[in-house]
Amino acid sequence: MPYITLNSDEPGIRGLFRYRPETALPLNELVEVLLRGPSTLTPGERELIAAYVSSRNECKYCYGSHSAYAAAQLPGGMDLVEQVRAHPDAAPISAKLRALLDIAGAVQQSGRNVTQEQVAAARAEGATDLEIHDTVLIAAAFCMYNRYVDGLGTVAPDDPGVYSARAERIVADGYLALLAESQRQAV
Amino acid sequence: MPYITLNSDEPGIRGLFRYRPETALPLNELVEVLLRGPSTLTPGERELIAAYVSSRNECKYCYGSHSAYAAAQLPGGMDLVEQVRAHPDAAPISAKLRALLDIAGAVQQSGRNVTQEQVAAARAEGATDLEIHDTVLIAAAFCMYNRYVDGLGTVAPDDPGVYSARAERIVADGYLALLAESQRQAV
Repeated sequence: MPYITLNSDEPGIRGLFRYRPETALPLNELVEVLLRGPSTLTPGERELIAAYVSSRNECKYCYGSHSAYAAAQLPGGMDLVEQVRAHPDAAPISAKLRALLDIAGAVQQSGRNVTQEQVAAARAEGATDLEIHDTVLIAAAFCMYNRYVDGLGTVAPDDPGVYSARAERIVADGYLALLAESQRQAV
Repeated sequence: MPYITLNSDEPGIRGLFRYRPETALPLNELVEVLLRGPSTLTPGERELIAAYVSSRNECKYCYGSHSAYAAAQLPGGMDLVEQVRAHPDAAPISAKLRALLDIAGAVQQSGRNVTQEQVAAARAEGATDLEIHDTVLIAAAFCMYNRYVDGLGTVAPDDPGVYSARAERIVADGYLALLAESQRQAV
């Protein structure tokens, strides 16, 4: 049961978007540009960073969602996402992505935990300044989304099918289109 | 020195806004609606929640900024803001605001740390569901802004006058107007 009375039965952050459309819009604009906007990181790689941070924050709804969105857009699928969650240092990903995940893991603890050495290591593996910027902001943003979802006690479905069905829609249409659809249904 | 090469000398998050206007816009839309949009919490109370979370995250730039913005909009000024930072339980604020700060403090650690009891205590002091929602999202959002600012190693001025001068502009015109002004200067 969520801690506040929502105006729908939608799970996780979707119920909060329906409850407070004024904040839902910038929250969705942010995730759309960060995870699906033009970038030299693929959408799958960026969803993987989001899933990794959500896992470290133990946010069941966000990990369920973004692990499914990452799996739908990475050749390794959910096996790869789970390997990254469990053992990022051993998972079969590029050295650049591993170095970016290392930065994201530091951000998950505190912005102050990121070191010059971690940034230099990512750069040595070919990461650009913009990729480093976006990695820090994706990790920071999921520290927000995760706290928002769990801090209001929202419900996270157990059925993986809920998240994988949503993944197809996110991959095809994106976050803002699904938000607009949900808001049309609410009227 | 920031960890990446920015395209201006602007301090803290302002340099990041100038560097990445695509993410700056939703980040400013979010803070504008959360801290200055229509609400039964005053802008000063909401800036105080932002300052309190920034202090707990030890983010010098964000605490310098939002403590100044809170002080400019609360009758107790900076003395009150500093009392809240040091001893929130003893500061001369309303019981409702104290209960909301207690929730914000839990969110700062983890969304999972917020309890039914904390929410019930805030409600018993007169907090509405929307005030509880916005408190959780303000606290969560500043866990993002703080990590963004410190995770990229941005510079925080020592001079309190930098923050108090900015406070006058924020109070008068708001976040989005100052963002637009900064982006016009960048062209």
